Amino acid sequence: MMDELARRLVEASELHGDFVLSSGKRSSVYFDKFRFLADPALLRDVAAAVRGLLPEGVTHLASPEGAATLLLSAVALEAGLPMVMVRKERKEYGTRSQEEGLMAEGARVALLEDVSTTGHQVAAAAKALEGEGGTIEVIVLVIDRGGADPLQAAGYRVESVVSLRPKD
Amino acid sequence: MMDELARRLVEASELHGDFVLSSGKRSSVYFDKFRFLADPALLRDVAAAVRGLLPEGVTHLASPEGAATLLLSAVALEAGLPMVMVRKERKEYGTRSQEEGLMAEGARVALLEDVSTTGHQVAAAAKALEGEGGTIEVIVLVIDRGGADPLQAAGYRVESVVSLRPKD
Repeated sequence: MMDELARRLVEASELHGDFVLSSGKRSSVYFDKFRFLADPALLRDVAAAVRGLLPEGVTHLASPEGAATLLLSAVALEAGLPMVMVRKERKEYGTRSQEEGLMAEGARVALLEDVSTTGHQVAAAAKALEGEGGTIEVIVLVIDRGGADPLQAAGYRVESVVSLRPKD
Repeated sequence: MMDELARRLVEASELHGDFVLSSGKRSSVYFDKFRFLADPALLRDVAAAVRGLLPEGVTHLASPEGAATLLLSAVALEAGLPMVMVRKERKEYGTRSQEEGLMAEGARVALLEDVSTTGHQVAAAAKALEGEGGTIEVIVLVIDRGGADPLQAAGYRVESVVSLRPKD
């Protein structure tokens, strides 16, 4: 079943053309994660798979800002858990917080990410949540493109819906 | 029923303390829209209300990037319609687009926003969608804090779940 979901994720998101990647390199293939997140039928199935990977005792769901908030909302509606969105930087006004939503001290957090290649953004979000008194119970990646390894090496429990490691 | 939903939205989101607003002014009250978006029970009810305001023939749902993407996802799951997230600026790499997700020429778009005071961000998103060959069928504001007026004056059909006009 995960193989079938993996096939649908790739089919929805893999674009063919002439692309400049964020690294500056050119590529004939671009993986556009927004494509699978923006399809409600696919998002619903992905959210159900993510929910199935949540351990007992999770009290809050979090994600970095950006594309992953589409996933965060879908999983929260499935699981009935409050959401936290983690900004890249602290906001300068209002709550002056790096976390938006319903963060609480003592929160037992499942941190969700759509795709992770290096783990950097996820690790930064995890640190921010820990800084607010939360515990990261699990990190769930929809697509692990290599990010799971450094996150596990940093001591986190990491689950992924599908693993699509880039070929070197 | 809308009065009850309005009460719940305010109760969830109105914070009391000492805040610096984005304008630089100080305030003892801060309306934190992430609070109502981050509560799955409230988000579900808001999404159902938004869905009820969509006219026949809408083919795509869109929102500006940021908090509204939580709403976008929830309404899309309710309505089974593809999503488009509109960036503030065009991306420099990959698809090089200002729209993320499943935008298509000829799309008949419902543009969703959580809170609008001036209408500026919504109007910019509407223009971007029109620039990609979309037609804005309706703009739906969860909370109209004044933004509906300039958007209507610009010729858009605007619906809102609740109206909470700031006191001068």
